[in-house]
Amino acid sequence: MTATDRPIPSDADVLEPEQIAGHADMDPEAFRAAAHRVVDLMADYVEDIERHAVLPAIAPGSVSSQLPPAPPEQPEALDAILGDYLRLIEPNATGWQHPGFFAYFASTASGPGILGEMLTAALGQNPMLWRTSPAGTELEQVVVDWLRQALGLPEAFDGLLTDTASTSSLIALAAARQAAGIDAAAAGLAGRSDVPALRVYASEEAHSSIEKACMTLGLGRASLVRIPTNDRFELLPERLAAAIAADRAAGHRPIAIVATVGTTSSTSVDPVAAGADIAAREGLWLHVDAAYAGAVAIDPDLRAPFAGWDRADSIVVNPHKWLWTPVDASLLLSRRLDVVRDAFSLVPEYLRTVGSDGTGGEGSGRHDDGRNYNEYTPQLGRRMRALKLWIQLRWFGLDGLRRRIRHHLELAQGFAAAVDAEPGWERLAPVPFSTVCFRHVPPGLAGDEAALDAHNAAIMDAVNRTGAIFLSHTKLRGTFTIRLAIGSLRTEARHVERAWELLRAAAEEVEPR
Amino acid sequence: MTATDRPIPSDADVLEPEQIAGHADMDPEAFRAAAHRVVDLMADYVEDIERHAVLPAIAPGSVSSQLPPAPPEQPEALDAILGDYLRLIEPNATGWQHPGFFAYFASTASGPGILGEMLTAALGQNPMLWRTSPAGTELEQVVVDWLRQALGLPEAFDGLLTDTASTSSLIALAAARQAAGIDAAAAGLAGRSDVPALRVYASEEAHSSIEKACMTLGLGRASLVRIPTNDRFELLPERLAAAIAADRAAGHRPIAIVATVGTTSSTSVDPVAAGADIAAREGLWLHVDAAYAGAVAIDPDLRAPFAGWDRADSIVVNPHKWLWTPVDASLLLSRRLDVVRDAFSLVPEYLRTVGSDGTGGEGSGRHDDGRNYNEYTPQLGRRMRALKLWIQLRWFGLDGLRRRIRHHLELAQGFAAAVDAEPGWERLAPVPFSTVCFRHVPPGLAGDEAALDAHNAAIMDAVNRTGAIFLSHTKLRGTFTIRLAIGSLRTEARHVERAWELLRAAAEEVEPR
Repeated sequence: MTATDRPIPSDADVLEPEQIAGHADMDPEAFRAAAHRVVDLMADYVEDIERHAVLPAIAPGSVSSQLPPAPPEQPEALDAILGDYLRLIEPNATGWQHPGFFAYFASTASGPGILGEMLTAALGQNPMLWRTSPAGTELEQVVVDWLRQALGLPEAFDGLLTDTASTSSLIALAAARQAAGIDAAAAGLAGRSDVPALRVYASEEAHSSIEKACMTLGLGRASLVRIPTNDRFELLPERLAAAIAADRAAGHRPIAIVATVGTTSSTSVDPVAAGADIAAREGLWLHVDAAYAGAVAIDPDLRAPFAGWDRADSIVVNPHKWLWTPVDASLLLSRRLDVVRDAFSLVPEYLRTVGSDGTGGEGSGRHDDGRNYNEYTPQLGRRMRALKLWIQLRWFGLDGLRRRIRHHLELAQGFAAAVDAEPGWERLAPVPFSTVCFRHVPPGLAGDEAALDAHNAAIMDAVNRTGAIFLSHTKLRGTFTIRLAIGSLRTEARHVERAWELLRAAAEEVEPR
Repeated sequence: MTATDRPIPSDADVLEPEQIAGHADMDPEAFRAAAHRVVDLMADYVEDIERHAVLPAIAPGSVSSQLPPAPPEQPEALDAILGDYLRLIEPNATGWQHPGFFAYFASTASGPGILGEMLTAALGQNPMLWRTSPAGTELEQVVVDWLRQALGLPEAFDGLLTDTASTSSLIALAAARQAAGIDAAAAGLAGRSDVPALRVYASEEAHSSIEKACMTLGLGRASLVRIPTNDRFELLPERLAAAIAADRAAGHRPIAIVATVGTTSSTSVDPVAAGADIAAREGLWLHVDAAYAGAVAIDPDLRAPFAGWDRADSIVVNPHKWLWTPVDASLLLSRRLDVVRDAFSLVPEYLRTVGSDGTGGEGSGRHDDGRNYNEYTPQLGRRMRALKLWIQLRWFGLDGLRRRIRHHLELAQGFAAAVDAEPGWERLAPVPFSTVCFRHVPPGLAGDEAALDAHNAAIMDAVNRTGAIFLSHTKLRGTFTIRLAIGSLRTEARHVERAWELLRAAAEEVEPR
């Protein structure tokens, strides 16, 4: 499970000191040679991924204690650096690339996606303005529209790529705040007698990123109203409507509803169409968080859970989750991108584009003809994220992506059926996608919830210690719940079978307390 | 200046359809072969960068119109994809890697930095929790501390890597908001009679990211008080003190001062020590924006402009600017990281780490022993940014980085001296670092400011159209100002000399109006 027996690069390739001592970058030919060496390390890592533990069996401080406390004054040879990489970094990386990664939601970096990251690094683009990367900006426009079509959404949706769903949802809620007619971008929220407390609605199962966006945006955690769910962990629309009515009666101002398709704990599906009805009636922004499950919508036969999402004001789907784009890549689509722009646009003089006639300065109203993506985001600078998506979408084709999604759905159904069929095991939620929630209930502990929680935590810990698979947990209605989330591009049936074997073995070995 | 004559990859390497048609990723050996091919494209690009125009001579829509409007249903061969990459992307990328990039602030991706991005892509880490990447988390802790030491800052500073200075400053101002004692993270800012309008102070030359952070955080653009500057474009501390007093008298609540070391337009240096005195006296958060110029502080002999920044509450320095780390990489340091955590920490059950005894669940107070970086950021998911920095710091060594910084400072002094010595040219700001602000003032236009603005815009446009260099502009006291910002790792004296030749030629050719 360690990589200590892998070859350390030879001393023959040590760079000459004069290459480092100059004023410029690494010599181009030295870079080419070094990059070829690095490719072999990368390919070895991916090829031999199952030789590493998914979850490194180390304690905090194990890595940092092996690194020098002070930065190097003098240049070091690439051999020493790559040797340390093999010795310290690879074995202590968590196996996000490992087929036994069943924790959280998987985020595999596909082969073609990695090729895209390589080219992205060499191009060094910053598509903040059209002019600072015409290729990066226009490729982003094209890829965003390709994804929109792939997801079956109407042309009214336009959007952008961000780093994470946290940022996409933050942008969406900033737009909702802007759409509330209080011009928060200009005047802010503090010290205004004309602005009551604002309210955002999401189910009690909604992701923490929604709450964090409320914190960041100055709405505060208190602004997030958590709506109860039914026994399938789906938002109850009548409770949503009642909460809005109660808040209006109390003088608060509702601004947005967040519906989740594929919640983090159990991948439950909120009733988006009912949410859209309420949002329309109440004049609220509807944001759909489909960060994980949205990928399923690329299959027209599997779009039932998404019914009504075409009526959303904004939608987030994360290609870096179930579409295997290397981290980071989140897609934000909105049918009101002009409002997003109102929430974030600032054009200082040094970002204006000026024509040869001197026009285009402040107040001229002229400011390029291409899209300047920085006007839609909290950040000015941006990585070029479109290239890896473009390469990957072409290499797999939509058909290839759908095939892989369907395979994961089948594997999850198979695992759920195994849990259901096995005495002493209990499934704790429906399986609308590729994540199974379950626990072990040995006869001796039935009814003792505290003991069952501890027992299942011990099972999960024992399984994770094997290094073969990595599971994470949640709580559903207060019950400790093991999650098996299938989403790695490298997961095959044998890995799911192995997980089930390890779980049953651990359940027998772990002493019920 | 185009790449059409570069070899298109041969058909011999076309992947077999069955490799694409399965359930898993690109075959490992196919990935290895493809990645080696991609390395040659990357190395060719960097090696031949001067064959491309710095600023592509195309109109908006030129790239997107050549791409299929719909996504591909079926897989495409890598040859076709890489062929399109060479045909459409490279020639239409802006030359951030070009030695003639003198616009904005340069952001070269160094050779060792690119190697780091390659390994980062293959590892696919997400260091949101210690457990989701022990290596990524601990390497970040080490690299952040190395940078702190390199910058000459005391041990009290700790921090993290973010994507951009926009995010770093947003986090800093969110912490300032939190430190104001109104618990904005929990209660928000709206509808609170106990919270007056909040105020942030920065010079009129401060970067737009400060204003954007105010928008995002719910403070609003109105919360940012722009303090006038002296004739060197440096914040006037007495005006700052007066503005704070006036705001207090008006019932507003000051929360933060932003001092900039190296403003975007002219790279002017605010008096940080005076700002620290005022911040201490007034109980305000002091944030130092040294996104560009902070890199200079790695040379102990060049730290005069930074005097007093060790008294700041937070500091941002961008390694992806003048330390040549591939985009994105921004360093946020703070001596009050606990307040940053208060502003952003949320730990839902599915992110808790649970021990084998079942402890660690909600309310247990136990939550891992390693650092969980997501608690300090608006985002949950995060790229691993430490690896590229670690490789690069070791490959160059601090000595190598200092050598390159000093070279850029010398080149800028040389260019400024040339401008000063040339009749008809006027320098418009001091040159504390590597950016020169200037314009051409032909005798016939002297005194006609509107005509001078148009004349200089035309000069800049003519120079940019050559494709050999790329300049951007700003306005200083309303005057159109050409900026030559030296910061590319590949810029040599000959590129600066060429810029000066092209500028003088353009000034003669452009008809004064």
